[in-house]
Amino acid sequence: MIIDIHGHYTTTPQAHQTFRDEQLAALDDPTRPPARAAAISDDAIRESVELNQLRVLRERGGDLMLFSPKASGMEHHVPDQPTATAWARASNDLVHRVTQLFPDAFAPVAQLPQTPGGELGPVIDELRRCVDELGFVGCNVNPDPAGGYWTTPPMTDEYWYPLYEAMVDLEVPAMVHVSTSCNPNFHTLGAHYLNADTSVFMQFVLADLFERFPTLTFVIPHGGGAVPYHWGRYRGLAARLGRPDPSELLRNVYFDTCVYHQPGIDLLYKVIGADSLLFASEMLGAVRGADPQTGVEWDDTLVYVNNLGLTGDEHRAVVEANARRVYPRLDRRLAAGERMTGVATASHVRLR
Amino acid sequence: MIIDIHGHYTTTPQAHQTFRDEQLAALDDPTRPPARAAAISDDAIRESVELNQLRVLRERGGDLMLFSPKASGMEHHVPDQPTATAWARASNDLVHRVTQLFPDAFAPVAQLPQTPGGELGPVIDELRRCVDELGFVGCNVNPDPAGGYWTTPPMTDEYWYPLYEAMVDLEVPAMVHVSTSCNPNFHTLGAHYLNADTSVFMQFVLADLFERFPTLTFVIPHGGGAVPYHWGRYRGLAARLGRPDPSELLRNVYFDTCVYHQPGIDLLYKVIGADSLLFASEMLGAVRGADPQTGVEWDDTLVYVNNLGLTGDEHRAVVEANARRVYPRLDRRLAAGERMTGVATASHVRLR
Repeated sequence: MIIDIHGHYTTTPQAHQTFRDEQLAALDDPTRPPARAAAISDDAIRESVELNQLRVLRERGGDLMLFSPKASGMEHHVPDQPTATAWARASNDLVHRVTQLFPDAFAPVAQLPQTPGGELGPVIDELRRCVDELGFVGCNVNPDPAGGYWTTPPMTDEYWYPLYEAMVDLEVPAMVHVSTSCNPNFHTLGAHYLNADTSVFMQFVLADLFERFPTLTFVIPHGGGAVPYHWGRYRGLAARLGRPDPSELLRNVYFDTCVYHQPGIDLLYKVIGADSLLFASEMLGAVRGADPQTGVEWDDTLVYVNNLGLTGDEHRAVVEANARRVYPRLDRRLAAGERMTGVATASHVRLR
Repeated sequence: MIIDIHGHYTTTPQAHQTFRDEQLAALDDPTRPPARAAAISDDAIRESVELNQLRVLRERGGDLMLFSPKASGMEHHVPDQPTATAWARASNDLVHRVTQLFPDAFAPVAQLPQTPGGELGPVIDELRRCVDELGFVGCNVNPDPAGGYWTTPPMTDEYWYPLYEAMVDLEVPAMVHVSTSCNPNFHTLGAHYLNADTSVFMQFVLADLFERFPTLTFVIPHGGGAVPYHWGRYRGLAARLGRPDPSELLRNVYFDTCVYHQPGIDLLYKVIGADSLLFASEMLGAVRGADPQTGVEWDDTLVYVNNLGLTGDEHRAVVEANARRVYPRLDRRLAAGERMTGVATASHVRLR
């Protein structure tokens, strides 16, 4: 089966954004009534997904997508904690409903109600709610809730430890994923996302986080930002700084394949290797449409992966086995389905 | 000939750093006497370079290096303008002396006395002094004088136009190069440098800067940060945003070859092409020593370039011709030498 570990609900019905707008308006003007999460019908949800992520997933031969709220819409820069919690809950509830309506096609990944430098208690509460009550299999953690101003401690700082303890306890990995950039220097999709990927990997190089949390697992999206392209720089820097070779981090850190041209995926595979890659498209994400030079849709990353000439085992690792290792709750769900149907390769989740 | 367009004077005699320390101490304690630039002998300068950059340049077969002050030492985050100007002048004067002592091996590139969001008048004054009086052929421009807090407008903002007018007038390009990171989220060499490269390229994608300044030229170092690795992302984003294809920027924007492993250089050449690459090592820079797996010194980027299998014309473009196009003042200096010696290929600058 083919699991795309990085999809976003970028196509929510308009009422969800209206709720967000009302939330922000209420923060600006406390005389307004508090905003309430929108009532959205199953049909509206179905339509918003069937015409978009589900259609594209099907067209490209994917079976299952890990699905989280729109990354740029998380907007952790808004400092009010109750607002952040209400927004994360509403966004996660919608994602949960998508996965209930299409249980064979989507598995849920959570948005957390982070705020700039804010308390992690409510963040952990929402993570536990999503995992324990709603069957989420992962979460997105934003290393820069300030949205391009980077005022929160590095992800190796003790500030984050309570969240990591919860992640380890719940057996869920985190994708390191910033949200919208409020800083005009950083285009959200063309700079901020990639910078965050790069910065956090270097934070991991510098610290012993995984000695303290041996089972803590992160996914660095967008092909690892600049890291694989500069793998020699990271190896040389680590040696100069007396740190372990960055390859040691690959026990706990995975890269996704959201790199939108063949030479990039070629390098990613050559440098990082199949054991540390997770097939992903980020769709519907940063790019839309096809490369006029090749006719390939930019984010149809399965085409690039299929062009790598992988062995059968390597291909299975990238498109399925690694994901099941990184997301044990997903694996258990798939394995339970396999036992029920007696089909070893989880073909029941193949899209009808 | 082989021109390395990215070298730094990271090995200045200790007295230069002592001057800097005294400068900063005087800012903290105004009762201290003002710091004065150190008296440094020619012998001390000679030794600091002969054993380091000059030795390595020679060992690797390079002829000429564009040489600028230590990038992380520019420290534009210190907000006091007179301090910044005195520090830039002292640093540039030292670089100038290196190029006077070894005129065949080094050509000077300036540090500018930027401050966070500060006036550009003194910045332009120092650029003019360096170019008009001292024969500098280029400069480094820091897009984030705040050192990791990114409080200055994007490089496409009108804030920068007076500097660009001076650069165009003087016929000098700028390398986009940040200095030390004050933000614990960004390791200077492992994140901040690369993030800046990535961010500024995306700023260029979004604006029409080169319609207004058709001859303005920038070098984005460190192989363009994350950009070539994500070239498909940039092309797709540009199309989605209604912007010209990023390849259009390559009339004004060049990437250097400071990427420290073969797969990275392979991708850089494949994606960007020989016409837009400038041979560079960044030495003595981020990395030191050799890859234990290959025995190749990390920053011996000529090895990686030579392994590309370039045609003669392509190789000449990357190691010489592009540099002479980007740095017209360097070209005129070399051409004058060639006319004097009657040697067309400037072999007089080959190191003795």
